[in-house]
Amino acid sequence: MSKTQNTESTKVELENKDTGSSSTHEVVLKFSCSDQPGIVAAVANLFALQGFNIRESSQFEDVHTHKFFMRTVLESCEGPKSIEQVKTSFEPIAQRYGMEWSLYDNQYKPRVVIAVSQWGHCLENLLDGYKRGTLPIDIVAVVSNHAVMQPLCEWYQVPFHHLPVTKDTKSEQEAAILNIFSDNNADFLVLARYMQILSNDLCEALSGKAINIHHSFLPGFKGAKPYHQAYDRGVKLIGATAHYVTSELDEGPIIEQAVERVSHANTPEELVEIGRDIEAVVLNRAVRWHAQHRVLLNETKTVVFSR
Amino acid sequence: MSKTQNTESTKVELENKDTGSSSTHEVVLKFSCSDQPGIVAAVANLFALQGFNIRESSQFEDVHTHKFFMRTVLESCEGPKSIEQVKTSFEPIAQRYGMEWSLYDNQYKPRVVIAVSQWGHCLENLLDGYKRGTLPIDIVAVVSNHAVMQPLCEWYQVPFHHLPVTKDTKSEQEAAILNIFSDNNADFLVLARYMQILSNDLCEALSGKAINIHHSFLPGFKGAKPYHQAYDRGVKLIGATAHYVTSELDEGPIIEQAVERVSHANTPEELVEIGRDIEAVVLNRAVRWHAQHRVLLNETKTVVFSR
Amino acid sequence: MSKTQNTESTKVELENKDTGSSSTHEVVLKFSCSDQPGIVAAVANLFALQGFNIRESSQFEDVHTHKFFMRTVLESCEGPKSIEQVKTSFEPIAQRYGMEWSLYDNQYKPRVVIAVSQWGHCLENLLDGYKRGTLPIDIVAVVSNHAVMQPLCEWYQVPFHHLPVTKDTKSEQEAAILNIFSDNNADFLVLARYMQILSNDLCEALSGKAINIHHSFLPGFKGAKPYHQAYDRGVKLIGATAHYVTSELDEGPIIEQAVERVSHANTPEELVEIGRDIEAVVLNRAVRWHAQHRVLLNETKTVVFSR
Amino acid sequence: MSKTQNTESTKVELENKDTGSSSTHEVVLKFSCSDQPGIVAAVANLFALQGFNIRESSQFEDVHTHKFFMRTVLESCEGPKSIEQVKTSFEPIAQRYGMEWSLYDNQYKPRVVIAVSQWGHCLENLLDGYKRGTLPIDIVAVVSNHAVMQPLCEWYQVPFHHLPVTKDTKSEQEAAILNIFSDNNADFLVLARYMQILSNDLCEALSGKAINIHHSFLPGFKGAKPYHQAYDRGVKLIGATAHYVTSELDEGPIIEQAVERVSHANTPEELVEIGRDIEAVVLNRAVRWHAQHRVLLNETKTVVFSR
Repeated sequence: MSKTQNTESTKVELENKDTGSSSTHEVVLKFSCSDQPGIVAAVANLFALQGFNIRESSQFEDVHTHKFFMRTVLESCEGPKSIEQVKTSFEPIAQRYGMEWSLYDNQYKPRVVIAVSQWGHCLENLLDGYKRGTLPIDIVAVVSNHAVMQPLCEWYQVPFHHLPVTKDTKSEQEAAILNIFSDNNADFLVLARYMQILSNDLCEALSGKAINIHHSFLPGFKGAKPYHQAYDRGVKLIGATAHYVTSELDEGPIIEQAVERVSHANTPEELVEIGRDIEAVVLNRAVRWHAQHRVLLNETKTVVFSR
Repeated sequence: MSKTQNTESTKVELENKDTGSSSTHEVVLKFSCSDQPGIVAAVANLFALQGFNIRESSQFEDVHTHKFFMRTVLESCEGPKSIEQVKTSFEPIAQRYGMEWSLYDNQYKPRVVIAVSQWGHCLENLLDGYKRGTLPIDIVAVVSNHAVMQPLCEWYQVPFHHLPVTKDTKSEQEAAILNIFSDNNADFLVLARYMQILSNDLCEALSGKAINIHHSFLPGFKGAKPYHQAYDRGVKLIGATAHYVTSELDEGPIIEQAVERVSHANTPEELVEIGRDIEAVVLNRAVRWHAQHRVLLNETKTVVFSR
Repeated sequence: MSKTQNTESTKVELENKDTGSSSTHEVVLKFSCSDQPGIVAAVANLFALQGFNIRESSQFEDVHTHKFFMRTVLESCEGPKSIEQVKTSFEPIAQRYGMEWSLYDNQYKPRVVIAVSQWGHCLENLLDGYKRGTLPIDIVAVVSNHAVMQPLCEWYQVPFHHLPVTKDTKSEQEAAILNIFSDNNADFLVLARYMQILSNDLCEALSGKAINIHHSFLPGFKGAKPYHQAYDRGVKLIGATAHYVTSELDEGPIIEQAVERVSHANTPEELVEIGRDIEAVVLNRAVRWHAQHRVLLNETKTVVFSR
Repeated sequence: MSKTQNTESTKVELENKDTGSSSTHEVVLKFSCSDQPGIVAAVANLFALQGFNIRESSQFEDVHTHKFFMRTVLESCEGPKSIEQVKTSFEPIAQRYGMEWSLYDNQYKPRVVIAVSQWGHCLENLLDGYKRGTLPIDIVAVVSNHAVMQPLCEWYQVPFHHLPVTKDTKSEQEAAILNIFSDNNADFLVLARYMQILSNDLCEALSGKAINIHHSFLPGFKGAKPYHQAYDRGVKLIGATAHYVTSELDEGPIIEQAVERVSHANTPEELVEIGRDIEAVVLNRAVRWHAQHRVLLNETKTVVFSR
């Protein structure tokens, strides 16, 4: 996301490199700014004049902070358009309203690195959607501190990087992850039951670009062994939470959550088993929505323009 | 809703009468038309030029029929506006795009008549929301073929009309309902467990203006005694469905549905009891969304722009 | 519940006084003890020999503590039985297995005192079920630190006690509540959105006999204004939790929980409104199950033999 | 299941062959019969005398038909027991009460054949649970009218049988399925999105031994393309139903159901995608419960003693 106040941001240029093709029939614009009259009209006009039709549009005003959020999908009625030119034409409006904004080629599939440890259900769910073409991402690498998921990745023909980690090698291992991320021009990282806590540095480097699945209904049961915590507390529903990674453990902005009913008769092992399906579904939705640019950050929260 | 093709519709004028005050700070516009480029820009421009800020906006394009639906809430930044003038100013756009459209004062609470038989839980839920001011409707009358809900209505200080019905008096009784509807300048009718089937004529007269709660998860278990049908079929979830009334029984456009888990051990009487809460919640949502002009008809289906 | 080790418990006698009629066609037995072979056979035999048929039976063994829990509903095939005699005949088995046990007349409706503050939705739900006869309780009194619910209680013809409270009068006010509880031979207390924290003494006095509804999905958002906490955290589901009251705030054994989906667009006020229905439904279930002796305490957790 | 009236059933002997080992520490008994006093005591006594402890027990009386259903898990406190001897010892009680009954080695994992067409998500979910050892079944063969799932089965090292079918070869193809079922001593068949309608003969042959997943919330949307039917009807929730196969299409006894929320904006293709997860979870539960002998047939319905 690029902050445009007075100068053209360098971040926009960086993102251009990533998003592949230079022309497209369909773009996604998302932005946030202080609420003020005329924003929608200005945006709609600009694109109407350039021959775009609005396919989807969602907006939200935070009534407490008066911050305005918008996502719109625009289809060219006049053949392919240069994304660079569309961006340039949008720049004046972005400056006028002080927008934090991004514009994407809607045909481009974000490039994703997945981190996993020994449990493969979330990974497999993502690989399956990727392979069938229903999840709009391009899985460019899987990294793991264990070797156990290697055969699965080979089966799906996705590069697998075994990166063992100890206390002493943590910073090197994280550097290796970041290198794989950069070398692959990756757009975001998914922690699909990756059982290592990321360092503050890595959290910062991937701010807004790393999604984690936590196996509890946050804010309940942060940290380790949440199903056992849930068992001990005797809750009647267990859940899973997909959230952006921040340096505060399990405190990042929540993207999606779901729960399932359990009873006193379920052992911790059964909670783990029941939870698997919730985790995979919740993470899948979060990844999908992030990949479709439906998730906007609103400080410690998210705005999710799901369908 | 008014169809504007070549001539100014008389229906718009009729609705002006109903919607009370002639000036307002906030209007709700909803419309549908064939999809074509520039609609949103034209609408946004018109209102920006008149000093309106867009508070909420939702849109949807049916990819199969290419019909476009939009609802937008507009706040005047320049003091109160005459609704009549806003409508007049919108008329040319509506004509240009062949819109079916309506425009409402957002401060106006729709006037509602509720029909009920002997079960009061849905009625009570609506009366309670109305009394507390959280449900944006004005309940102007309750009609019933039984007297049992009279004390409840008196308690809530809502006029109650006891209109018994037999086979022979059905047409007169329905005429009485329609008269109460008209005399009260009502905007819509809610069948809150009204256990009579409306005649085709009444369904026609109130087309798009009558909401029913059916105590099953449609299309399963249409008609009488759906909980007993559900018991006999051995389903593991029961549900409720709020829909617009049409002349085909339980076939009208669905507004909202919900379900609750049951087991083999639940008797039909327990299903009835469990279902009560679902019915009340589902009907409450449907009434709220309709009252806020969030529901648009898409032939036999609805578009629901819920929050 | 009575602990029977070597001597006949006086608590059993106390409970006899409460549970009204001295003979019945149907009894409910619930007990817990260390797991050991032959318990079910011993219990089933005893009642078979006395001409009882087992209508319902549920059991659970905690695999970690090896504690065994059972609830069974027994119907006499030989006309009415003296509860006192049934208890006496069960005493030797209870002693042999070291059971903590209770035996109830299944036709007896527990006597309930409800505490409420200014929000009536949970109270109304309970009063409605009581009035219609579908909730198997006898509401003998409503106590409140506010007067606002008095008309509602009058409407339902239930005695209302206005017991205002200040910091200085808290102990007297709680004494008044306990007196009303005792004078009415009440079996349990329901805190139906009673916005006062009970003193440790009152919690002790009503241990296992006081049910609270907390308006969050515990353990998330304990204490005050949970919906505002939920809004600030940006959760995607909100919930409600019914639990036994203990001296640790919102930490008592959980009886039932449920959640509802919300979005970034919902204001705290809307969360409060959406939450109302969940709270009422969850509390209703907890009260029903407690009244039917379906809830057994397992240290800090519950065993719930729901249908 | 064996019907024991006057003569010892041959079916019991057949089942002995199937269930492998001749001695065990834990057995599962399930039965149904007319309700009458003393059943539980008789059963509990018999097993107590033989040194069994009751680990789990569930019962249900159908209040309309007065049929009684019970499932109990019995653990030997005296070392391994001969299943044959346990059965023989139970036979007199079964005869006395006219029970339809079965008794299983609880350590035995039922042998399962899975039929699939071109969609692998339900198959993969079952294979995954089987491989990890959390789903208590032994998948002995996969049959399919298409070849597409062969690599997946090879990956999981499960025998795959490609059995193409045309109108003319349907009876032979079904005979081949039955042969594979028999040759593998299979206990039940799972139709994991097998898109062929079984002949009446095959339905009869596998009565109570074939579980299907239908991709709608039955009884709504029977037959072909239920998600498209759901789209056309404009429902607000879609679902999946696991049921026993009978000769009446999609009318068999329902084992489990679940739903997920959708909106007007979801295309039929998105409904298909959302539905995948529900289907897999619902079928997994049904297979698990059937494999654990938790499902008892009650004419056209099921009794499910889930945890």
